[in-house]
Amino acid sequence: MPTTPHIEQHFTASATVRDIVIGMSDGLTVPFALAAGLSGAVASTAIVVTAGMAELAAGSISMGLGGYLAGRTDIEHYASERQREIQETEKIPEMEKKEVADIFQAYGMNEENIAPVVAAISSDRDQWVDFMMRFELGLEAPESSRARQSAFAIAASYAVGGLIPLSPYIFIHDITTALYVSVAVTLVALFIFGFVKGSFTGINPLRGGLQTVLIGGLAAAAAFIIARLIAAKP
Amino acid sequence: MPTTPHIEQHFTASATVRDIVIGMSDGLTVPFALAAGLSGAVASTAIVVTAGMAELAAGSISMGLGGYLAGRTDIEHYASERQREIQETEKIPEMEKKEVADIFQAYGMNEENIAPVVAAISSDRDQWVDFMMRFELGLEAPESSRARQSAFAIAASYAVGGLIPLSPYIFIHDITTALYVSVAVTLVALFIFGFVKGSFTGINPLRGGLQTVLIGGLAAAAAFIIARLIAAKP
Repeated sequence: MPTTPHIEQHFTASATVRDIVIGMSDGLTVPFALAAGLSGAVASTAIVVTAGMAELAAGSISMGLGGYLAGRTDIEHYASERQREIQETEKIPEMEKKEVADIFQAYGMNEENIAPVVAAISSDRDQWVDFMMRFELGLEAPESSRARQSAFAIAASYAVGGLIPLSPYIFIHDITTALYVSVAVTLVALFIFGFVKGSFTGINPLRGGLQTVLIGGLAAAAAFIIARLIAAKP
Repeated sequence: MPTTPHIEQHFTASATVRDIVIGMSDGLTVPFALAAGLSGAVASTAIVVTAGMAELAAGSISMGLGGYLAGRTDIEHYASERQREIQETEKIPEMEKKEVADIFQAYGMNEENIAPVVAAISSDRDQWVDFMMRFELGLEAPESSRARQSAFAIAASYAVGGLIPLSPYIFIHDITTALYVSVAVTLVALFIFGFVKGSFTGINPLRGGLQTVLIGGLAAAAAFIIARLIAAKP
């Protein structure tokens, strides 16, 4: 047994990092693809900027509020499931004790070892219910401030991500040049984003970078082709 | 103790239902808001349809592939964490046994009850590692086919959701009429979607319906205002 303290080095993405990843990966991809798609169909950067900014507003509000509601739903879902577990430990305690026993049985423990464990856990109702929530249902108590923070992080990172592919159309008036600059800038940004995300989530950063470039590129190519098929350039 | 079989009635959304909800809620909202926003800035439904379809392609590919990669990352993350736990049970078994003991201690069990439990769990390495994965790290083994199914469900429901707000612009050539029809049709669709989603996730369906209408409405209003501010109607 080592004498130095042992620190677990498992990676668990903080919830905020996850929200930023969610917002930014869509923010970098969808406005980029939309702008590229429109460049294949319209002649004016003004329309691309208008559509792009409308998409940015729509996307960040929709994703941000969606994140907020998902957070609220988690909180309410946890509370209602907890209430139900409390009722079950009151009404059908033997059944609930058997469920605790079943969980340990699945890990190869025999009856005589399980009995004291079940007795200890079920001796305190709060503790018992917490155990059922976590180990039977796999639910962790959500933080109450999560929903608002989550909404803000998702919306802001979507907007920041989306401004990168749109900025060339704002500053460059020739639509073809703007498209090329936007493609170059965004592919670099997608690569950096995927690289950083990869090193956070423990997958190979280089592969992470290439994956996000591939997604953004495919989405943009599809949008470009569809827009060009629908509308011939005026 | 009741003699009738006890069936737990907790709601756990199937992964596919969750994917459909993710895809459709964005699909109904973002193309709707983009189309409404552009209606405030351009004179032709053709541009709205072009931008809308480009967005639909971009959004469903981006979200679908994003879902695919998230599924793949879950699988790889689980595998790499499991590998690490296996190594830890080999290299520092006493530390890992103490971690098992700590989990039970948190539920108020005393030392003498914990010892046989820890011995039973750690008697089989596979079982021990499975226990650590679930109870220490809170990770469940992901299904290997999830990633592809998830990608398809998200992309398809995004596309289906997005066609609802766009169809009026395809069939009606007067942009103001198309906008009104799109707003009416989409708010109804958002309400139905939120209502059904609410009854699935256990929140009040009426409130669920009103929430999705509110998100879609706010996103569309913001997109409309921003688009109008950027470009005056030609």
